[in-house]
Amino acid sequence: MVGTTTETRSETLENVLAAAASAARPLAELPPRDRAALLTSVAEALDANAAALVPLAERESNLPEARLTGELARTTFQLRQFATQLREGSFLDVVIDTADPGHPLGPKPDLRRMVVPLGPVLVFAASNFPFAFSVAGGDTASALAAGCPVVLKAHPGHPELSRRTAEVVTAALADAPRGTFALAEGLETGRAALLDPRIKAGAFTGSVTAGRALSDLAGSRPEPIPFYGELGSLNPAFVTPGAVRARGEEIASGFVSSFTLGAGQFCTKPGLLFLPSGHGLADRLAAAVRGVTAAAMLGERIRDGFTSSLGALADVPGVEPIVSPAVEEDGRVSPGLFGCTVPTLLANRDTLLRECFGPASLVVTYEGNDELFAAADALEGNLTATVHAGPDERDTAGPLLERLRDHAGRLIVDGWPTGVAVSPAMHHGGPYPATTSPLHTSVGATAIRRFLRPVCYQNAPQELLPPPLRDRNELGIPRLVDGRVTTEHLTAKEN
Amino acid sequence: MVGTTTETRSETLENVLAAAASAARPLAELPPRDRAALLTSVAEALDANAAALVPLAERESNLPEARLTGELARTTFQLRQFATQLREGSFLDVVIDTADPGHPLGPKPDLRRMVVPLGPVLVFAASNFPFAFSVAGGDTASALAAGCPVVLKAHPGHPELSRRTAEVVTAALADAPRGTFALAEGLETGRAALLDPRIKAGAFTGSVTAGRALSDLAGSRPEPIPFYGELGSLNPAFVTPGAVRARGEEIASGFVSSFTLGAGQFCTKPGLLFLPSGHGLADRLAAAVRGVTAAAMLGERIRDGFTSSLGALADVPGVEPIVSPAVEEDGRVSPGLFGCTVPTLLANRDTLLRECFGPASLVVTYEGNDELFAAADALEGNLTATVHAGPDERDTAGPLLERLRDHAGRLIVDGWPTGVAVSPAMHHGGPYPATTSPLHTSVGATAIRRFLRPVCYQNAPQELLPPPLRDRNELGIPRLVDGRVTTEHLTAKEN
Repeated sequence: MVGTTTETRSETLENVLAAAASAARPLAELPPRDRAALLTSVAEALDANAAALVPLAERESNLPEARLTGELARTTFQLRQFATQLREGSFLDVVIDTADPGHPLGPKPDLRRMVVPLGPVLVFAASNFPFAFSVAGGDTASALAAGCPVVLKAHPGHPELSRRTAEVVTAALADAPRGTFALAEGLETGRAALLDPRIKAGAFTGSVTAGRALSDLAGSRPEPIPFYGELGSLNPAFVTPGAVRARGEEIASGFVSSFTLGAGQFCTKPGLLFLPSGHGLADRLAAAVRGVTAAAMLGERIRDGFTSSLGALADVPGVEPIVSPAVEEDGRVSPGLFGCTVPTLLANRDTLLRECFGPASLVVTYEGNDELFAAADALEGNLTATVHAGPDERDTAGPLLERLRDHAGRLIVDGWPTGVAVSPAMHHGGPYPATTSPLHTSVGATAIRRFLRPVCYQNAPQELLPPPLRDRNELGIPRLVDGRVTTEHLTAKEN
Repeated sequence: MVGTTTETRSETLENVLAAAASAARPLAELPPRDRAALLTSVAEALDANAAALVPLAERESNLPEARLTGELARTTFQLRQFATQLREGSFLDVVIDTADPGHPLGPKPDLRRMVVPLGPVLVFAASNFPFAFSVAGGDTASALAAGCPVVLKAHPGHPELSRRTAEVVTAALADAPRGTFALAEGLETGRAALLDPRIKAGAFTGSVTAGRALSDLAGSRPEPIPFYGELGSLNPAFVTPGAVRARGEEIASGFVSSFTLGAGQFCTKPGLLFLPSGHGLADRLAAAVRGVTAAAMLGERIRDGFTSSLGALADVPGVEPIVSPAVEEDGRVSPGLFGCTVPTLLANRDTLLRECFGPASLVVTYEGNDELFAAADALEGNLTATVHAGPDERDTAGPLLERLRDHAGRLIVDGWPTGVAVSPAMHHGGPYPATTSPLHTSVGATAIRRFLRPVCYQNAPQELLPPPLRDRNELGIPRLVDGRVTTEHLTAKEN
């Protein structure tokens, strides 16, 4: 059902890159409110085209209509949230230190800092969120919000949807500088664009293998550029004995719902569940897994990857199937669950501490806190880590969370990692291999920071300062002036 | 006069790394006020040992006493400024979004985000600031402030001073977790430490060649880590015809003072001066350069690098000496100045757009704004760019600054780039090769951000939250709560 991806012709890519480069300065100069209007216009256009886009997405991704409708709503919500942020203005991170002739280290000049866009950004779309992490997804929204032109490398999993979405976005950006947004297709095209000196940052969501290769490529350029990859995550969940006693069955069902949601094709899918030995939940877990309807995966390549990961997992001595996954005749996949102990896990890290993308997970039983903590310490970087504990088990949950904090970007208590709220406090990131840049998030308000760099003006006269840095705070944005946050104008000084 | 550097023994390095790793969690858990006390104690100890440290620095760096005394004052000022920042608390970047069951995208959990330290940081000291960018310099101060243990790779240019400073720092940190700070010596030791999985970030100030090699090494690890290198910068200065008319002689003297300061061994040394053709300042420039006393450079290797860069520069057809630099019999160096045109500059970018570390600079004459803008567009990344313009030349200065902003981290009007104020609005960074991370600064309050990563807690009960995220704001720090900045406690909610 999926259309064909063709490599963008090199002359076309050259035009796209030249236009993006020439759009960079006018887009950067656009007042934040005007950029907000552009984002709102993209959101409105996507909403208005939902009836055309959702069926296309359904056909190319095999995801159900309700999920896709919700995902499109999330995508346009996100665009509007960045628009709100642009109007509020604190993202500009304005700091003004007025001149201080009596500074202890000697006379200090007038210094005014704000952030400015990095320049054209190459965004690699993901397959598993054909709206929210694709053409008009979070990376595109945050790069455009930052004032960076976007070259969008389409994911081959949904080429027709990508083209149609790009048309909607391009039309909605009719008032933006020419070159603000363009689509590019094909693996080689993506690599060529990433190596082009006019591209100033990359963003990617996908596998560790592909993401690391692109990250290395970005780092190999004569001018290396920031590359924000969201790669692989196991999203381990830890359950204490008290939590099993208090609500073991609820936890078992919650876990199965979470790891099978969307056929297990979420970057936040819990791929490991740690249960105390003798937990008594095996039957409940097995029943819950068997109760999940088989579902089509995003595409054949993804399904092949899943079955090959499963094969490697099942081959590890000490790993036993609780419920064997199966690929039906029509290609749909029913979920699987495996079991092993902490010593088996630790002895087979290369296989068992690797993400398996799809509806399968591993239940690991532990003997006491030493094994629990050893397993936590063995983890690589993750987007999330989850703890279920009883209220009288803070002595376990406390040190466990402290350990997990070294290995995850989001710590969830008594819940599940799937479902990433689009919210200012959200952090969707984590140490490698969860991301290639542990300082940054790809979801939430602060995602914009990835595409902004500071610039400081020293002793510049008013008329040479960009508007956010002038004495007269005509944008009414919050600014840190001589150590105090204020939205007021600066009173005239003798500079 | 310089002592000998020896490679730290590998067993010693192993102990240093193990101790740094074991210090990471206790140091992270230390309340910011306690970390502030540690920084203050280091500052006090350095001040108290000035009489011993400054003469050592003089002997090993050839820099004059007054400069070194001032530099030590800057170093301890910097430590105290980070201490102030720790007590104020906004560096924690706390964002709290309370639960919202009626959120348009579905019920939203309680989300609370703050930043936490990355873990042990490997700091490579620089030669040209034996205090401010060395053992207890800005990188060490900001990493410790962030709560990261520091392994300091000493610069071979001042080994005795490095050891003595490290002793002072270590003694001052007696109350800190064991492993908070240690010195390591030798090139191979530095490389081995950078590749060690216990090191979670690197910081470096030095040459493009060395910095790029280390940055690539950090990126080549199984777990790549953030590497903050401050490498090379030309710091071009542009002078308009009106500025020449209004104060040409003052500009000529200011420029010569700036590029010869500290024997031209500043990362902000102006290495290019653009003057309109027919500027008539050649004699004045030559006289000013001849008036500068010869000075000893930091060491023989630096001097050899300088003379070899000079050779390459002087060999370019079209580059003429205005004043030839000279190495005196006693090894001291008298400054040099060269001249060429914009077409020569653009035809020889590989040689002429490279930093030449030492007391030499290049005057480039331009014909009209087209050449001026073409030269600005040809620049790679710089720490600074400077414009001198007359008040009636905004039509030139405006577009010029707009272009320069793409290529520099700090834009100076009618001043000089040397002298980097330690101030919240300072940005000491810029696009590659000025730095390996254009989003960050190595001077000023925001330097701390390099060593912090966000973590989000979802639905965690009060007693499992770190103190900055609890309802009761016992640290009294500013927090963004449901979109509003406040230092108040959260009123009890039903979570």
